[in-house]
Amino acid sequence: MLSRGLFKHFREFHVHNSFRAFVTTNKIRTEKDTMGPIDVPADRYWGAQTQRSLQNFDIGGERERMPIPLISAFGVLKMAAARANKNFGLDHKIADAIIQAAKEVMDGKLNAEFPLVVYQTGSGTQTNMNSNEVISNRAIEVLGGEIGSKTPVHPNDHVNRSQSSNDTFPTAMHIAAAREINDVLLPGLRELHKALDAKAKEFKDILKIGRTHLMDATPLTLGQEFSAYATQMEYGIDRVEATLPRIYQLAQGGTAVGTGLNTYIGFAEKIAEEVSTITGLPFKTAPNKFEALAAHDAIVETSGALNTVAVSVMKIANDIRLLGSGPRCGIGEISLPENEPGSSIMPGKVNPTQCEAMTMVCCQVMGNNVTITIGGQNGHFELNVFKPVMIKNLLQSIRLLGDGCRSLSRNCVVGIAPNKDRIEHFLQESLMLVTALNPHIGYDKAAAVAKKAHKEGTTLRASALALGYLTDDEFTKAVRPENMIGPTEYKS
Amino acid sequence: MLSRGLFKHFREFHVHNSFRAFVTTNKIRTEKDTMGPIDVPADRYWGAQTQRSLQNFDIGGERERMPIPLISAFGVLKMAAARANKNFGLDHKIADAIIQAAKEVMDGKLNAEFPLVVYQTGSGTQTNMNSNEVISNRAIEVLGGEIGSKTPVHPNDHVNRSQSSNDTFPTAMHIAAAREINDVLLPGLRELHKALDAKAKEFKDILKIGRTHLMDATPLTLGQEFSAYATQMEYGIDRVEATLPRIYQLAQGGTAVGTGLNTYIGFAEKIAEEVSTITGLPFKTAPNKFEALAAHDAIVETSGALNTVAVSVMKIANDIRLLGSGPRCGIGEISLPENEPGSSIMPGKVNPTQCEAMTMVCCQVMGNNVTITIGGQNGHFELNVFKPVMIKNLLQSIRLLGDGCRSLSRNCVVGIAPNKDRIEHFLQESLMLVTALNPHIGYDKAAAVAKKAHKEGTTLRASALALGYLTDDEFTKAVRPENMIGPTEYKS
Amino acid sequence: MLSRGLFKHFREFHVHNSFRAFVTTNKIRTEKDTMGPIDVPADRYWGAQTQRSLQNFDIGGERERMPIPLISAFGVLKMAAARANKNFGLDHKIADAIIQAAKEVMDGKLNAEFPLVVYQTGSGTQTNMNSNEVISNRAIEVLGGEIGSKTPVHPNDHVNRSQSSNDTFPTAMHIAAAREINDVLLPGLRELHKALDAKAKEFKDILKIGRTHLMDATPLTLGQEFSAYATQMEYGIDRVEATLPRIYQLAQGGTAVGTGLNTYIGFAEKIAEEVSTITGLPFKTAPNKFEALAAHDAIVETSGALNTVAVSVMKIANDIRLLGSGPRCGIGEISLPENEPGSSIMPGKVNPTQCEAMTMVCCQVMGNNVTITIGGQNGHFELNVFKPVMIKNLLQSIRLLGDGCRSLSRNCVVGIAPNKDRIEHFLQESLMLVTALNPHIGYDKAAAVAKKAHKEGTTLRASALALGYLTDDEFTKAVRPENMIGPTEYKS
Amino acid sequence: MLSRGLFKHFREFHVHNSFRAFVTTNKIRTEKDTMGPIDVPADRYWGAQTQRSLQNFDIGGERERMPIPLISAFGVLKMAAARANKNFGLDHKIADAIIQAAKEVMDGKLNAEFPLVVYQTGSGTQTNMNSNEVISNRAIEVLGGEIGSKTPVHPNDHVNRSQSSNDTFPTAMHIAAAREINDVLLPGLRELHKALDAKAKEFKDILKIGRTHLMDATPLTLGQEFSAYATQMEYGIDRVEATLPRIYQLAQGGTAVGTGLNTYIGFAEKIAEEVSTITGLPFKTAPNKFEALAAHDAIVETSGALNTVAVSVMKIANDIRLLGSGPRCGIGEISLPENEPGSSIMPGKVNPTQCEAMTMVCCQVMGNNVTITIGGQNGHFELNVFKPVMIKNLLQSIRLLGDGCRSLSRNCVVGIAPNKDRIEHFLQESLMLVTALNPHIGYDKAAAVAKKAHKEGTTLRASALALGYLTDDEFTKAVRPENMIGPTEYKS
Repeated sequence: MLSRGLFKHFREFHVHNSFRAFVTTNKIRTEKDTMGPIDVPADRYWGAQTQRSLQNFDIGGERERMPIPLISAFGVLKMAAARANKNFGLDHKIADAIIQAAKEVMDGKLNAEFPLVVYQTGSGTQTNMNSNEVISNRAIEVLGGEIGSKTPVHPNDHVNRSQSSNDTFPTAMHIAAAREINDVLLPGLRELHKALDAKAKEFKDILKIGRTHLMDATPLTLGQEFSAYATQMEYGIDRVEATLPRIYQLAQGGTAVGTGLNTYIGFAEKIAEEVSTITGLPFKTAPNKFEALAAHDAIVETSGALNTVAVSVMKIANDIRLLGSGPRCGIGEISLPENEPGSSIMPGKVNPTQCEAMTMVCCQVMGNNVTITIGGQNGHFELNVFKPVMIKNLLQSIRLLGDGCRSLSRNCVVGIAPNKDRIEHFLQESLMLVTALNPHIGYDKAAAVAKKAHKEGTTLRASALALGYLTDDEFTKAVRPENMIGPTEYKS
Repeated sequence: MLSRGLFKHFREFHVHNSFRAFVTTNKIRTEKDTMGPIDVPADRYWGAQTQRSLQNFDIGGERERMPIPLISAFGVLKMAAARANKNFGLDHKIADAIIQAAKEVMDGKLNAEFPLVVYQTGSGTQTNMNSNEVISNRAIEVLGGEIGSKTPVHPNDHVNRSQSSNDTFPTAMHIAAAREINDVLLPGLRELHKALDAKAKEFKDILKIGRTHLMDATPLTLGQEFSAYATQMEYGIDRVEATLPRIYQLAQGGTAVGTGLNTYIGFAEKIAEEVSTITGLPFKTAPNKFEALAAHDAIVETSGALNTVAVSVMKIANDIRLLGSGPRCGIGEISLPENEPGSSIMPGKVNPTQCEAMTMVCCQVMGNNVTITIGGQNGHFELNVFKPVMIKNLLQSIRLLGDGCRSLSRNCVVGIAPNKDRIEHFLQESLMLVTALNPHIGYDKAAAVAKKAHKEGTTLRASALALGYLTDDEFTKAVRPENMIGPTEYKS
Repeated sequence: MLSRGLFKHFREFHVHNSFRAFVTTNKIRTEKDTMGPIDVPADRYWGAQTQRSLQNFDIGGERERMPIPLISAFGVLKMAAARANKNFGLDHKIADAIIQAAKEVMDGKLNAEFPLVVYQTGSGTQTNMNSNEVISNRAIEVLGGEIGSKTPVHPNDHVNRSQSSNDTFPTAMHIAAAREINDVLLPGLRELHKALDAKAKEFKDILKIGRTHLMDATPLTLGQEFSAYATQMEYGIDRVEATLPRIYQLAQGGTAVGTGLNTYIGFAEKIAEEVSTITGLPFKTAPNKFEALAAHDAIVETSGALNTVAVSVMKIANDIRLLGSGPRCGIGEISLPENEPGSSIMPGKVNPTQCEAMTMVCCQVMGNNVTITIGGQNGHFELNVFKPVMIKNLLQSIRLLGDGCRSLSRNCVVGIAPNKDRIEHFLQESLMLVTALNPHIGYDKAAAVAKKAHKEGTTLRASALALGYLTDDEFTKAVRPENMIGPTEYKS
Repeated sequence: MLSRGLFKHFREFHVHNSFRAFVTTNKIRTEKDTMGPIDVPADRYWGAQTQRSLQNFDIGGERERMPIPLISAFGVLKMAAARANKNFGLDHKIADAIIQAAKEVMDGKLNAEFPLVVYQTGSGTQTNMNSNEVISNRAIEVLGGEIGSKTPVHPNDHVNRSQSSNDTFPTAMHIAAAREINDVLLPGLRELHKALDAKAKEFKDILKIGRTHLMDATPLTLGQEFSAYATQMEYGIDRVEATLPRIYQLAQGGTAVGTGLNTYIGFAEKIAEEVSTITGLPFKTAPNKFEALAAHDAIVETSGALNTVAVSVMKIANDIRLLGSGPRCGIGEISLPENEPGSSIMPGKVNPTQCEAMTMVCCQVMGNNVTITIGGQNGHFELNVFKPVMIKNLLQSIRLLGDGCRSLSRNCVVGIAPNKDRIEHFLQESLMLVTALNPHIGYDKAAAVAKKAHKEGTTLRASALALGYLTDDEFTKAVRPENMIGPTEYKS
């Protein structure tokens, strides 16, 4: 039978979400820790400390659980630790069972065993213990022991050997961030960069009116316009990559306060080596472990890079929807692909939904940056205790930006088509081309042409012809936007 | 068999999360919309438009789905709309089936039918259509029809009757926010206020040293110290309540651009009335529907109130952990309840985990406020298209603050105990009490007492006695912190 | 001769700014405080403590000085304190001299005597002492004494009597904020509201196309569009006014830690009364002085209201510049007044410079809100020590928003003119009006009309006529945008 | 006589500030631009366009003027442009006069001629024109001409030759940022780094208790604690330096929309070369001018680096004030230098004012980052029009951080002294050292020792002796904190 507290808790979950509850049977087992006995669902690998956290931190519900990539990173770390510990006296049979269980965590097979929310202890201790408990019980199972018995694989003595929550959690933070940046973010940014760059090339000969202050200005090509976007993405990729060296630094080996008490000389380096082998990424042990536990400036720095990328993407997505606005009563120089029904009767009502999703992502990333900034500054002495909220927000930003850029790229950018007629129409309509008449009829007459056209709502051509300053043919020869899109050669 | 796109999508879900996949069978049915046929899982109530969004917005994964309270609010709204539409020509049998299905949505029974993420179209159209599709199919089922047939209950003609996504989504935003504020946030704030206020009373006679600039200052009572916290919470409740009048305004009746085209005179008011009846909250129709669609200043305003509350709670939680720091090498004037094992060997190592969870919540709320601010400012013309990200962040802030305050209150504040010995020790140790000697031995001698005590590391009493300025008894009578905790009566 | 430190400091000022240096002569006088003697420019009213701060906090230069409205508020406060102290034993002759000197501070006559920057001690102690020193020396001068002698008017014993920096600074913060809100912000907001509301009325009969997702939508009037802006401003004024009750609470009387030690019963209430008399604003003494010193939630709250107003104004100013974009290649439905030369040859190039200034103001206000939020949360125990940065940012936000709204209103909004031809052109061009044909020719034929028009780039009218579904006259009668701008009456 | 508008404006200035008014005489001259005649103070170098801006943007008052380093950067740029233009046909006599005048602007001699505020046109056009007008008039004066005559040095034709506001302003932004980073920020950061690193070395042998979660933990040395701070600063310097390559890219040569219309091939490169020569910094022409005008991601990126540094410094300054808290009732492990009188009677009341100033600076930098982020994302098409507010905030952040770190370093860090008695007292008091007893008396007995000590408030030593588990001498040998500050060597 479920204990009262347990029951209340699981009811809460039912109320707040739509997913499968954690308890599939009503059976419990009793676990013990230094605070005494506590009931745990019998079919779960987690133990007493996880259970206490579940009951003490009923904050936010299921959607606020620790991010999956962080859980996976704990799998990586615990596997690496067991491998390293083989060199420092850990029984190989135990080590191998831990490695097998940790790999299952890394591979996402035990995700349902990690029920704890972000808003727990700020060191993430309870998620480290959740990892230790799940891996030890699963390893016990592998070795034919009894779950909950802590024999032959003890969560602290074996799984957490030579480690402290204070160094494992920041290590897992960096592993998770590095993997997600490489697996999700950078591919997304590169895909968007590639798509924009391809459009810059595709559109390189399409002359169009420029706009500054949202007002008509001198011409450029649509390709030049898109080249700015491609450049922004190129630099954005540089910005993210530039943060990686400090993300690749691992805190492991600092244990409780950074000194490395209770660990062995060489353990820190060995762990970093094993994590690198497992992930294929160039992790290193952090030169100063005190900094690595007490501050998470590298997380703040990386979030700052994401913030800058979000600023870039916001500009790009905004421009795209403005360029595509209309179809009749906006700018309408480009058409966006139609992915959903706009209106059943209104052809051409293609809403820029991918741009909308993308700009919402950008808002989220910018707000997350503030959350991370506030969390990052508030450490005290040897430990920053805003670790979970910092990594949660960073991982969310990484995933959303990566997914968003991929979605924008595939579902929008690659399908952008220029509306050449409208582009040409605006180019001809614009009064800015009048500057091209200066060398032919002089500044004053050119100004008169423009003023008349503006006043009467006609084109420059019509105005010039009406004033008798040029013939139609002369106008065609004189006003060539294609000559207005670059600097000229100086002739002294 | 699953279509390729569908398969890829569900695989993705498996990779990124640990929950039950949406598809429990491999059967599909084919739905149609104006863009043509599309495969939908056969056992799902959702239809073509939901399915397209699911495929087109693969951003963030399962945890980024529309918040449950918003889905529930759509249930409320669609129920209210069906009730109102009875007065405007909707067949009563159809209306009643819609009402039954909408109630199931409101009650959370169909949550698994709402798979769409926040990062979709910025008007939330796809979630409105998700609601329409689910409710129509469930109502069809209730009436014995065939799911997917749109007969006899059509998602647009009946469920969405007299409505547009552009007015339903902001209406659901306000319903969801109002309910969560009343159900989760205010109870949480009130519980914390009550707990702090009780402590202020309980501690009213405990004299202690005050601290300004983190430096020893003149004394006050521990109750006075906690009274500041209670006052902060009291004002915080006022601040949140002050935003409600504008949250109670509903956009419904504005339809596509705020004019109310395609709806009837009186419909807007009737909907507000029905929503009020269902929820028990005093909703009203918004006086200006153009503002209600194009801007979400009320959401920004409410988030601003939450931001202020987060600032208050951050201060309180920070003070509590500082007051409880130690047990030996910190301030240690109070003890916090021990909820988890601190250290197996280290008695008294009770980490302030509830304060840590709470302050992480505050970081999140402050960052969310920036997300909401950026989203709120970026509307264009008749529509703000950052609706989903705004409401998602607001609902998260509401829930986290409400849950966090409840958790802090129950698991920490109510169990705070003063360490009277330590408090008294500091009070006696402090050199600030020297000011009480002025009237007795004069300013210069008092200063000499303090300087000697500081230099030699002794107490004021020891110093005064050593200098021979007072007897032990005289010192006891002169230095009375209890006389230093309020203004004195003026005697001319 | 200038002391070395002094010289260096003034040189620094010369390097960093263009204004008159503080020292007009090279004469100095020597002042003393508990740390010993220090050189002060002989022609200055300030004393030792101001001088030390000037030398110890060489941060940011002249532009980072304490805001003038705060200095003025210190004038108000010290005047009020002297008046109140008359009831509590202060010599009337001294009190009157203080009142005269404090009034000069209030009136801005002694601004040059307040050289200290914001980034000083976080309690603002040094600015309180700056006030005390300047007022005492000026009062000494008034009474014929020698500047620097502290006789007969002592900066601490008389000017600061019954006060502490810890309660004066927050009191001055609230006085300054309240006055600036009433004098600068609310008039600015009201002027903008009035201008927008007048335009809403002026434009009430101008039918135009609506836009959602930046795409053409159903029509509304230009007046309806502006009514949304006016409503936003109306609510914004409400939001700001709603914060005033807590701004009108004064901390004075709390002295060092909130207990009111060293002050008299009744002093707090008397000060609030005098401040109210001087300012004409309904100040009250804060019910809980501990909260009033240790937290500045009221400042955070008010900043949150400004943040919401900034969001509103950002939307409005953005819409205005988008509506005015062009003149040929944008939306161009309105013309903005021309305040500066746009282009010498390009008529119609009127840049929306007022909108640009306004939106930059909004960015600043939003960032300031984050600064204030971070400062507000970081108090410790009995004192928040982010006071100067909080009030500086709040006052800047108040002034910029007030000035900005006035400028936008006067230099832009009042002069906005509709471009009726272009508005009418878009309205007729739009395909969205096709919905009006449904009742006349049926949904399918209406859709055919729209599709043909979109495909061929013609108008609905041309398409309908070409398809032979209606005559020109019938089309004119059927498609009436003026019937599409409100709900219809229900007829059962 | 002053025109009415002019008079009002200057009155305003008098009301709002304490400095010398701009008009020293009442004489005016009449200038003309395309909008007609306008009165300008006769003794000013500025012209019509500056004057119009002064009147049209009465926002914020004198303290909101364009930052001095930006004005100086315009001096650099205009000097470089004149030098470059010598190669492209500019008369050498005119060029030399421009160079002389521009140098005066660069050197700050004409700062009073730049009265315009930040909140003007978002392209900064008016400040570019202000520069052109001032330099042309000063150059005219140098050449013996009449101010205001535009002969022989025309503001547009000569000073602004081959330039547009749209490329000059971003160029000046980058020049100003690069110079201030190199001249103010990096020296400040390096000074703080050096001071912290010196303390890390000085304190390397001082053993002390560690603290995690603000609770007593295992020991480390005070030097190790400070080494974390030094590492944070070291990385912070790296972070700032990493942004410089993109700050060194100059937009000059893009002219109005990025195409370089109206400029010559080679001009862009030549300008970058000249700017490098003048400043001694490695500027380059931006590879993509469209990006350089339309986006300011490099400014956002740099602000992100400053935000990270602010996070670091906030942690450091917070720790320092917590370590110094007391003197009796706090942690008090270090003493901070006394720079101002704390209390006349209370020895040892040394408020951590430098930490307070520094943390206020950090708040400002963090808020400025949000302002810059919002401005950076809001460009449209070919031009971002939030340039002035972006650069103003960046320059403020640079200056404040640089000055703040220097001040904190000089006035606080270098003078920090350890309170060895108190540090030793805490170390001995702490119960955490009990772990050292494990190998000697076993885990269970060690736990009993700690529990007894905690319960009875005694030391571990007293408890161990009372329990009879060890002798005093054995205890001394067993409990050696100096053996707990690093990993141990593994012996298999």
